Amino acid sequence: MHALDASLKLEPLSEGRYRGDPPLAYWNMVGPYGGISAAIALKGVLDDPRCQGEPLSLTVNYCAPVRDCPYELVVENDRTSRTTQHWSIAMRQPDPNEPQRTTTTVRALAVMGRRRDVWEAAVGGGPPAVPGPHGLRSRKGREGIRWFEHYDSRFVDSPMKTVDPDAPVVSWVRDHPPRPIDYPALAALADTFFPAIFAKRKAVMPIATVSMNVYFHATAGDLSAVGDRFLLGVSRSSVYRGGFFDCESQLWADERLIATTQQIVWYRE
Amino acid sequence: MHALDASLKLEPLSEGRYRGDPPLAYWNMVGPYGGISAAIALKGVLDDPRCQGEPLSLTVNYCAPVRDCPYELVVENDRTSRTTQHWSIAMRQPDPNEPQRTTTTVRALAVMGRRRDVWEAAVGGGPPAVPGPHGLRSRKGREGIRWFEHYDSRFVDSPMKTVDPDAPVVSWVRDHPPRPIDYPALAALADTFFPAIFAKRKAVMPIATVSMNVYFHATAGDLSAVGDRFLLGVSRSSVYRGGFFDCESQLWADERLIATTQQIVWYRE
Repeated sequence: MHALDASLKLEPLSEGRYRGDPPLAYWNMVGPYGGISAAIALKGVLDDPRCQGEPLSLTVNYCAPVRDCPYELVVENDRTSRTTQHWSIAMRQPDPNEPQRTTTTVRALAVMGRRRDVWEAAVGGGPPAVPGPHGLRSRKGREGIRWFEHYDSRFVDSPMKTVDPDAPVVSWVRDHPPRPIDYPALAALADTFFPAIFAKRKAVMPIATVSMNVYFHATAGDLSAVGDRFLLGVSRSSVYRGGFFDCESQLWADERLIATTQQIVWYRE
Repeated sequence: MHALDASLKLEPLSEGRYRGDPPLAYWNMVGPYGGISAAIALKGVLDDPRCQGEPLSLTVNYCAPVRDCPYELVVENDRTSRTTQHWSIAMRQPDPNEPQRTTTTVRALAVMGRRRDVWEAAVGGGPPAVPGPHGLRSRKGREGIRWFEHYDSRFVDSPMKTVDPDAPVVSWVRDHPPRPIDYPALAALADTFFPAIFAKRKAVMPIATVSMNVYFHATAGDLSAVGDRFLLGVSRSSVYRGGFFDCESQLWADERLIATTQQIVWYRE
């Protein structure tokens, strides 16, 4: 079983309630990689028998550190209409100081939608023209960063060496080992981008995602057609101010925009 | 009292609970303008005595039509840490078919943050160089669209007449009559953008925001300095597909990026 599938396994407890094990294979330094928490939140909706349609949007707020103990995931169906379905999601764990109380570690909103066969268009000229992934080197991970072992990410130009530190970070990425993409995998991939602030400051510094937003622009059929091939990611930040910066990114598969994603991220000088 | 302030008046019922009147002054065709619902959600957090810091992010999901009857607004403080504070928000009204039940009409997440005096930078060269607002004409409203009466919006180039229908829509906007900007006003302004799909298709068609996300990049001091002057908005869409399109926009005040905002929007052909 792929580490991603093992990490997204949810044990149903009752309607809208699951128990899950901490996704240790996707651990970052002091807790899970943000993308895996996003994928877990979405998986909770997709596993629910009431779920209708395909993911349209996902917002994930990282409220408190997720600990290496089991969690409860609660998904609430706020509304179902003909075209959309709204969900609220909470991940909870026992409070480390008062185990009889729970802490909300992750809060999320998801919208599912019924896509229809209507007029379509893309704007803005497609992804940047760059060399394909197969001649490029995979990024090396860092000691102790487990989640990165499960991705194959390849820079078109190393952002730490580039002449223009404000240039968008362009990279190819897929699960490692390769795994056919689905919506939870896409949600997790949306958090793999190299932080542009490291290039801007020519240094690695403490950062933490506060909130992440993903808009899905692909049907399940589109994702099947992508299979396990590389996605092209393009990412940029606009403003670093007051200890928080934004990040706006696109994920492309074969000239087709399949997700746009944004974050607001805490940084320490 | 400005119509915005009248529309954001919340009567506290108990901790985290308010009663509000429907914001009829900001009514759209069949319910309130999405931006006013976003502002109400944020106001509920800002009015709460537990609220700490300044808005960093706001995500608003439009679950069900808001009716012209009083609503209950519930704000839940999910977590407070030294740097951030996480909130969940729900607007509820009696179900039109079963009045003893309630419908969740709006669901939102907000993050507050403590901004610090640290290294700052802006990336990407500032707003487009365009003529100032004072020589441009105000957009005319349409019969029955009440919310638009409370904004003064001025196109740099009319998107319905522009040569390139894929060009970003650039416009000046402020409250009308002018009102010193604050965070709820900024949240509401983030939804004023002219939908690029109308320019793309050279026709007005039914659309509805499904989810809206706002990242705030301004301190309260920055907003005080802006006062009641015009903001410059730049907005574009990337993909129209399956009955939903995205929209990504920036709001600038005096060369300073004060908000970035995104939407996913339903459209009918």
